[in-house]
Amino acid sequence: MSVVAIGSSYRIENVSLKSAAATVGPKEGQGPLGADFDQVFQDHSLGQTSSELAERQLLMVSQIKALEKAGLSWDDVSMSLGGDLLDQIVSTNFAAREHKRPLVGLFSACAVFSEGLGVGSLLLAGGGPNTVLVSASSHHLSAERQFRFPVELGYQRTPTAAWTATAAGSAVLMRGTGPIRVESVTLGRVIDFGTKDPNDMGTAMAPAAFDTLSRHLRDTHQSPRDYDAIYTGDLGQHGLLMLREYAKTQGLALGEELHDAGRELYHLDKQDVHNGGSGPGCSASVFCGPLFRRLERGEWHRLLLIATGALFSPTTYQQGESIPCIAHAIAIVREESR
Amino acid sequence: MSVVAIGSSYRIENVSLKSAAATVGPKEGQGPLGADFDQVFQDHSLGQTSSELAERQLLMVSQIKALEKAGLSWDDVSMSLGGDLLDQIVSTNFAAREHKRPLVGLFSACAVFSEGLGVGSLLLAGGGPNTVLVSASSHHLSAERQFRFPVELGYQRTPTAAWTATAAGSAVLMRGTGPIRVESVTLGRVIDFGTKDPNDMGTAMAPAAFDTLSRHLRDTHQSPRDYDAIYTGDLGQHGLLMLREYAKTQGLALGEELHDAGRELYHLDKQDVHNGGSGPGCSASVFCGPLFRRLERGEWHRLLLIATGALFSPTTYQQGESIPCIAHAIAIVREESR
Repeated sequence: MSVVAIGSSYRIENVSLKSAAATVGPKEGQGPLGADFDQVFQDHSLGQTSSELAERQLLMVSQIKALEKAGLSWDDVSMSLGGDLLDQIVSTNFAAREHKRPLVGLFSACAVFSEGLGVGSLLLAGGGPNTVLVSASSHHLSAERQFRFPVELGYQRTPTAAWTATAAGSAVLMRGTGPIRVESVTLGRVIDFGTKDPNDMGTAMAPAAFDTLSRHLRDTHQSPRDYDAIYTGDLGQHGLLMLREYAKTQGLALGEELHDAGRELYHLDKQDVHNGGSGPGCSASVFCGPLFRRLERGEWHRLLLIATGALFSPTTYQQGESIPCIAHAIAIVREESR
Repeated sequence: MSVVAIGSSYRIENVSLKSAAATVGPKEGQGPLGADFDQVFQDHSLGQTSSELAERQLLMVSQIKALEKAGLSWDDVSMSLGGDLLDQIVSTNFAAREHKRPLVGLFSACAVFSEGLGVGSLLLAGGGPNTVLVSASSHHLSAERQFRFPVELGYQRTPTAAWTATAAGSAVLMRGTGPIRVESVTLGRVIDFGTKDPNDMGTAMAPAAFDTLSRHLRDTHQSPRDYDAIYTGDLGQHGLLMLREYAKTQGLALGEELHDAGRELYHLDKQDVHNGGSGPGCSASVFCGPLFRRLERGEWHRLLLIATGALFSPTTYQQGESIPCIAHAIAIVREESR
């Protein structure tokens, strides 16, 4: 068996992460990680006539680049897994019209990239497909319009509001060995602490990140220090603080190894993004760009990605509901050179 | 290995379908299949204050009933897989807040139930989870409001318009043997023939149903007559005709074995549903209610379920896009009594 259940997590053998590619918009390109993305588009429209078409294009370019880097064509892909934030995940679904590979459409809000890596790894280890493409995307303008207001309104943003990233990431997972491989997967449970402010999703998501992280560490008999880096998805600076504080009350000390993709995507002091980046493309692009490169270069050997998602909709918000959240974790290891 | 890839399909061994339960609203209860659902609610609000809450309740009752019928509690469930039609699949996500089991959120529009059965079967056969709950739901009022108009407007429906079912279905899949088991899975590709009318989704979806059906039959070396029944999801009467006609042009003769869940859910002649039922709950409830019972009673031994989904959104429709579609197939067999 190449999959072994350990508690509510799974140990994975024989699944390698072959390649990853990230595409971003101009603002993300100007951030501190800008040099580590595969393509930075200088125009956030990507030459398209709508922000929805721009997001789709961003996604498709990341998919094609990931395949190119793996030396594969679409015909080599057994199955494509992915999702995005738009209603009916239309970026993912319409992009899939072009590649004609069997599609597993996923939704887990901004946690969908690690959901895809997790499900894809379990499927590969289980002996079904042998090559899986996992992807996720978001676009600032399409998401703001859908979830908050069209940006043309020029509304004031609160300090805890996140900036939905114009970004996409795609990764190729294959059954078999390779220098970078998947070690374990912990899928998320829905956690709702009763917060209702869609402009403070970091606080809403922190308990879900804690739930998944603590289950993961318990199941795998590890401490946070066993990882070179633990990256949550898009808690942002406020959410990251909330996670640290909450973990402390639960007896878990999180140190220098803890980072957040949304916290690092932009220069918080000068790019006017308030709490930091968010959106499915945030953790996807940060993982597929800078984090994957550090693994490739051998700077890190053990990375835990915990993308986080807020599972509300504009309708549930208007109906006065709180914000249920989820986080999915995937542990990636870079084998020591021999 | 309990999974073997055959073409773009998978042969599954060692996964049994332990139980299934369907819950529906009053109109569905008055249809020809009404006696075969586990619970018919006489009030489409289910005592809730909004149609979104009603849908969530309908879904949760189907989940609990499926677990009860399998003699299981939530603690026995390794993983819950499912989806619905609402933006950000909030029925599935909010329901998951109650049960606290690891959740794989899926989106494949009205095809999501067979997507869940397919992915769940592959995961189980692969040796990861050992018990999976798969579910899907829809509610007429929440869906109409989101996709078309609030029903209070009393707008005229076209003859090809589908009636989104107030219905949910849940099924328990387990690794191991049992009288009813999963034999094979064929996941769908996104097919778009360029139609743009959201009031004729049957015509839009028929080519996707054909694509999956023909790949399935080719991969498994079967003809349609090898199944006692082939049920598409919700092509309705027009879409079913389109599928038959289109298949004929492609050299595939479909006979008496072909049925459609949306076509059979209502009395088309007197329930004013025009083309028939639709929504993720349509194929989910028809499968988990009447079809599963026929398998249990041994009336059928081989069933192919091909739920179909139209992957557009109100935004893509307003932007003049065509309607990409998908269909996922799962073959279920009832072992002969020995």
